[in-house]
Amino acid sequence: MILARVKGSVVSTHKSEKIEGIKFLLLEALDPSTMEGKGSYVVAMDAVGAGPGEVVFYVSGSSARMTKVTDKKPADASIIAIVDNIEINGQYVYQKGQE
Amino acid sequence: MILARVKGSVVSTHKSEKIEGIKFLLLEALDPSTMEGKGSYVVAMDAVGAGPGEVVFYVSGSSARMTKVTDKKPADASIIAIVDNIEINGQYVYQKGQE
Amino acid sequence: MILARVKGSVVSTHKSEKIEGIKFLLLEALDPSTMEGKGSYVVAMDAVGAGPGEVVFYVSGSSARMTKVTDKKPADASIIAIVDNIEINGQYVYQKGQE
Amino acid sequence: MILARVKGSVVSTHKSEKIEGIKFLLLEALDPSTMEGKGSYVVAMDAVGAGPGEVVFYVSGSSARMTKVTDKKPADASIIAIVDNIEINGQYVYQKGQE
Amino acid sequence: MILARVKGSVVSTHKSEKIEGIKFLLLEALDPSTMEGKGSYVVAMDAVGAGPGEVVFYVSGSSARMTKVTDKKPADASIIAIVDNIEINGQYVYQKGQE
Repeated sequence: MILARVKGSVVSTHKSEKIEGIKFLLLEALDPSTMEGKGSYVVAMDAVGAGPGEVVFYVSGSSARMTKVTDKKPADASIIAIVDNIEINGQYVYQKGQE
Repeated sequence: MILARVKGSVVSTHKSEKIEGIKFLLLEALDPSTMEGKGSYVVAMDAVGAGPGEVVFYVSGSSARMTKVTDKKPADASIIAIVDNIEINGQYVYQKGQE
Repeated sequence: MILARVKGSVVSTHKSEKIEGIKFLLLEALDPSTMEGKGSYVVAMDAVGAGPGEVVFYVSGSSARMTKVTDKKPADASIIAIVDNIEINGQYVYQKGQE
Repeated sequence: MILARVKGSVVSTHKSEKIEGIKFLLLEALDPSTMEGKGSYVVAMDAVGAGPGEVVFYVSGSSARMTKVTDKKPADASIIAIVDNIEINGQYVYQKGQE
Repeated sequence: MILARVKGSVVSTHKSEKIEGIKFLLLEALDPSTMEGKGSYVVAMDAVGAGPGEVVFYVSGSSARMTKVTDKKPADASIIAIVDNIEINGQYVYQKGQE
């Protein structure tokens, strides 16, 4: 899974009928060693109710269909967790609410 | 899913019999922070009737088969939505019809 | 799917028994905006009878198994179409037989 | 599969119900020719009980679901082996416990 | 499939029970236009009995499970062929035993 930050959202009215009612969030992948954005963006389906600015991780490929929200849907990226903290070499590099 | 712009189309008469009758669009991935093309192209099957110049997002991998149009077909990229707007940090970076 | 040109072939006598009798073509991905090769190569199974120098597109991942030739085989890249023409912004950038 | 070193961990309380109880480790891909980190990180589910600093390899894509721990879960990266040694051209470039 | 050379091997005693008894080879992807290594490495399961220094191609993703050796296993890269020769533009760029 890839760490990313919720940067915004994407709205579509004209879309595959299978994805009606799903929220599409725009994620920017982040480098956990610096917590900076990497400049690469993906549109992900939201399986956990993530909000703007939150750090999450998403799952890619066929496993993006393995959530209740995305089951059998044409999803290749689904947010499956809102991150509380990230630790590298025993040090917190991210703690939610303490940025 | 990846944001892209419809740049053109690809025509083939000699092809796998499973993909007869499907429209193949040529997409250029775009960077939503600038709305510029990234110079990388993909041929996608069209599940929504997208047209030239439109901003869309497409789904990759096995999930590209999870639409009515592409079911059981050898698709690894399918357009599943025509984008109305893209918002980053609370600002619209793209609104259809206002480019 | 990815646009590529058939550059050559790969022969193997010692291989998985599941891929006996299949032709392996060497493809170089191409940039449709210039029709130049990108210097990245892939070995693809041929589901359409493509020949040397032809422009094709191939499908990757599990969908590479969704052709008659590659059904249930260990394929991650299959040629599914020989390209007749490619159009970008309303202009032909490639027409078969007119290179 | 990709060689990587366990650099840390990621904690989430708000997540897909399917991944309750799974440990998420933060891996940095490594170049076996130098045993240096490559600066690219992935969050992986742990199917083998790997610990901080250990060299492992992980499996990506749908095959990340093919372990007891990750069966049917939204996993796209699962650690499936703790590495004892790596040999290149007949020389050990890594032996566990001898770094 | 991707062309690569067998550079070495990886040994693990502590691993997913599903991959007991499988040989893990370390491959370096190669550029067929020069036959030089590209500096990117992957750990692959061996379905054909490849040996050190041999040129092979491997299959990625779910199709890596489509061999007798790797059926239902957490494999995302499996060697499926030992290469005899590679031809580009009608010229051999590689012939086994003539390096």
